[in-house]
Order: sequence, then C-alpha cells, then structure tokens
Amino acid sequence: MNHQQLFEQIQKKRSFLCVGLDTDILKIPKHLKDTSDPIFSFNKEIIDATAEFSVAYKPNLAFYESLGWQGWESLEKTVHYVREKYQDIFLIADAKRGDIGNTSNLYARAFFDKLDFDAITVAPYMGEDSVKPFMTYLDKWVILLALTSNKGAFDFQFLKDEKSGDQLFESVLKTSKDWGSNESMMYVVGATKAEKLKEIREIVPNHFLLVPGVGAQGGSLQEVAKNGMNNKCGLLVNSSRGIIYASAETDFAEKAGEAAKKVQQEMEILLSESKLI
Amino acid sequence: MNHQQLFEQIQKKRSFLCVGLDTDILKIPKHLKDTSDPIFSFNKEIIDATAEFSVAYKPNLAFYESLGWQGWESLEKTVHYVREKYQDIFLIADAKRGDIGNTSNLYARAFFDKLDFDAITVAPYMGEDSVKPFMTYLDKWVILLALTSNKGAFDFQFLKDEKSGDQLFESVLKTSKDWGSNESMMYVVGATKAEKLKEIREIVPNHFLLVPGVGAQGGSLQEVAKNGMNNKCGLLVNSSRGIIYASAETDFAEKAGEAAKKVQQEMEILLSESKLI
Repeated sequence: MNHQQLFEQIQKKRSFLCVGLDTDILKIPKHLKDTSDPIFSFNKEIIDATAEFSVAYKPNLAFYESLGWQGWESLEKTVHYVREKYQDIFLIADAKRGDIGNTSNLYARAFFDKLDFDAITVAPYMGEDSVKPFMTYLDKWVILLALTSNKGAFDFQFLKDEKSGDQLFESVLKTSKDWGSNESMMYVVGATKAEKLKEIREIVPNHFLLVPGVGAQGGSLQEVAKNGMNNKCGLLVNSSRGIIYASAETDFAEKAGEAAKKVQQEMEILLSESKLI
Repeated sequence: MNHQQLFEQIQKKRSFLCVGLDTDILKIPKHLKDTSDPIFSFNKEIIDATAEFSVAYKPNLAFYESLGWQGWESLEKTVHYVREKYQDIFLIADAKRGDIGNTSNLYARAFFDKLDFDAITVAPYMGEDSVKPFMTYLDKWVILLALTSNKGAFDFQFLKDEKSGDQLFESVLKTSKDWGSNESMMYVVGATKAEKLKEIREIVPNHFLLVPGVGAQGGSLQEVAKNGMNNKCGLLVNSSRGIIYASAETDFAEKAGEAAKKVQQEMEILLSESKLI
C-alpha cells in the first residue's frame, strides 16, 4: 500500500486507528482456550469486530514468539486471514528489528516475502545499512523508532550532539530521512511525547508517524492530532489494550468493536476539524 | 551459566570461540535439502563437528524467521539438541530485540522460558526498561549492542554528547553498566572496531564482550585479544560464515570442524600468552 492509498483508506473509514494485536495467551477469554488455536481465534474475532473502524493492525511479535513456533503459526494465520478478508488493511509487524545488512535482508524476507506485512518497525542504532534492505520492496515500509513512549526513552534519545546541537532522536530523523522517502519510511513517535510532535513535524513534515502510547500509557489523542496531523493526516495512532481487552468475557469482540468505534468517532471529529474529510 | 562457569569452559576447551549459526536455506549443501528439516540437519552436523572447539553457539534469528514457523521449529530443535547433548555450551539468541517493559518481558519469556537460551542480544535505543526484564532470570544474560561491526555504526554510535563528551556507544556502556552487573550483562563490540576495545575496557573492565566481525567482515583476532582480553578472558569471538560454510559439499561438517579447530588453536596460543591456561 502506498502513501496515497493509505490516506484514502483513512478518508474512507474516517479513522486513523491502528489496533495493536498484543495477544497474550494469559489474557484472552477462557472459552477460547479450548479451541485448537486460541491466539488466532481471538485475533480473528477482534479483527472482524474492529475492521470497520481501523485502517491498520499491528501484531507485536513478542507475544507470538513467547509461544514458540506455534505462536508464529498463529501469526501467519492472522496475516493470511487479514489478507484474504480485508484487502485494504495496512499490516504492521511490530518487530523492532535491525541488524547488519545481510541479516536485515533476511528479516525483510521474513516479514515481506514469507509474511505479507506492509511495514515493519526497526530500531535505528545500527544505522543505514541495517535499515535500507527493508526499503528495496515496492510499497513496503520501514517504521523507524525515533522517540519512544517509554520511560527508557530518556536514557539515550535526548542526548544532545555536540556538533549539531541535535538530540539523538532528531539526529535519527534528520539522517535517516535521506535513506528513503515518505513513500518508504515512517517514524515511531510516542503519544506520551506529544509536545515534541511539533518539532518533529518541522523535520519530517510529510512522513506518516506511528503513534503508540494513547490510552493505557497515558497519551492524549487530541494533543497528538493537534501537533502531529498534516495535510494527508500523517498519523496512525495505535491502541492495543484499551481495545482488545475491553472485556475478558464472551462478549470480548463486541466490546472491542465498541471501544474501536469510540476511538474512530473521536478521530472522525479530528479529521473533520482539519478538513481532511 | 554464570561468569565463572563460562571462564572455566574457556579454560577447559582452550577456546573462546562462538560459532554463529547463520543457517541460510540457500547456502546449505544440496544433499541436505531432501531431509525433513534441512536447517536442523545442517545445524546438528555443524554442532557435532565443532562442539569440541567452541564454547558458544549463536543462532541468528533472522535466518530462522525468514522461513516462518517452520524456521522457528528448526531453531527450537537446535536448542533442544544442544541442551541434551552438550550441556556446557553457552547459547546466545542473536535477536537484537528491545521494546517497552511489558513487551520485553515477553521476549524474555520467549528466549529464556520457552527456549532455553543463556543470553540474548538487545538493542539499547529504548533504554533501561527495555533491557531490565531480561535480567530478572538467574544466570541468564543480556548482551547489549554497544559498538557494532557494520558501516552504519558510524551514523549514530559515534555522536558525541554535548554534556559529558561521551560518544553514544560510551554513554550506552556507562549508563547501562549500572542496570546489572558483569554477571548479567555483556556487550557487543565489533572486531572491525578493535582499536576502540582499549577505551571500552576502561569503562567495563570485567564484562564479557561478544565480538563479531572476525573473518568475513575483516576483523583481526590478534588485535581483539590484545586490546580486549581481561583476566577472565572476557571475550567471546564469533565466527559464522568462515566456519559453517567452509565447504558447500558433503564434507561441509568435516571442513567446518577443521575451520573451528584452526581458530581454536589460534585462541589457545592467545590464552596461553596471557597466562589464562
């Protein structure tokens, strides 16, 4: 999916919601645990209940890997299900990979060839040759970590470079934006750092930003939209726990759908206020 | 495995070699491709031929993930094989993970509970809470990226902090060494940056360093030992392609054994010169 197509989906659904499929075997409703693949059963019902209100899904790889190869099989089934039933969904592998060139090539093979994801999150520490292999695929995306939503972001991401005066996350943005274009790169910016979105928009005015941290982590959707929205929306705001665990009972999918709809309605207002729909 | 036990293995085998299991389905000998699990068949023979000369193995996750859930199954079989047959081997998941706290917890579950690795490589960009969950397991290790062997290392790892004057990799070392001890943390330092090992040893005199980049990437074992060895050796030097692809024919395991033995013999001299054996 390219930049324009993603924007069109946002306009059509009046939503820039990404649902995080952080599917934890310990948290899914009891009645699903007897099915042959509880993780996939859960995802399938969540997707069916929320696809109308969401433009993207973001499985977090850790949750699948923690179950070994069976977890990977559940992930593959989830990806295939979305690809068959909801062709217009943007699929993000939240994998935070990144390695030397020949290894990143293989991660690209894993997530873009073997699995048909649209995008993968990548950590910037190892620099250009760890990121570029993901950008050789047409209409596939790298989503590079810039400013993350967690407390540990303050350990290194704000260190200020002696020469340029830029903080590390700014150096990451400024250096990496020349590695590709806003047709192949996005950035992760945590909603808990919404006040930084204005500065970030000056560096990357046209890139999409993937924004986690709204909801459970405390970020505000209004603040994110106010500071981060551009003329093609330019935002994918992720919510995980607030949607997929809205209920732990047999009505979990229905409640997830309601929670997603509520976020979509807030987003519709924000899109409308910005005259994007 | 703890620090002292690892040092004892190094003394016993007169080797600080880590064999990188970067097992690429496109590169393994033809005659293995008809077996039910070519990746595991290859690893098994490589391990049997090299275990005498190696203290550690390091599967690189990208190679397994590129094959989907079947790749993960091959990885699991490899780990179980080592655990059953070679109890004294130190097993490193070269995964370069790192995410917010609750997600890193799940990665720890994946690699330390579900799989029985001794250590996992982790990227430092997201800071303390992305690293600490891996250190709650007794005698398990985080191996944090400090200075990597690739060209992209120059993009961010050498940025100099305005306040402290430290380059980013130095900040990573200085800040992170207080998150754990030399009983729970190691660092990745590329052999191609061997001249930096002296400075690094001043910051972390007692930690083990995992050193990739000898061989195919051009690093020198002698330089690494000269600048990086401490009184408990403190080095695990990785070689992947130079050993596992020493031959692409039916004699691949034999040739891998010979290549590993050659490295071991060089290491024995270096250990002996430093009076560690």
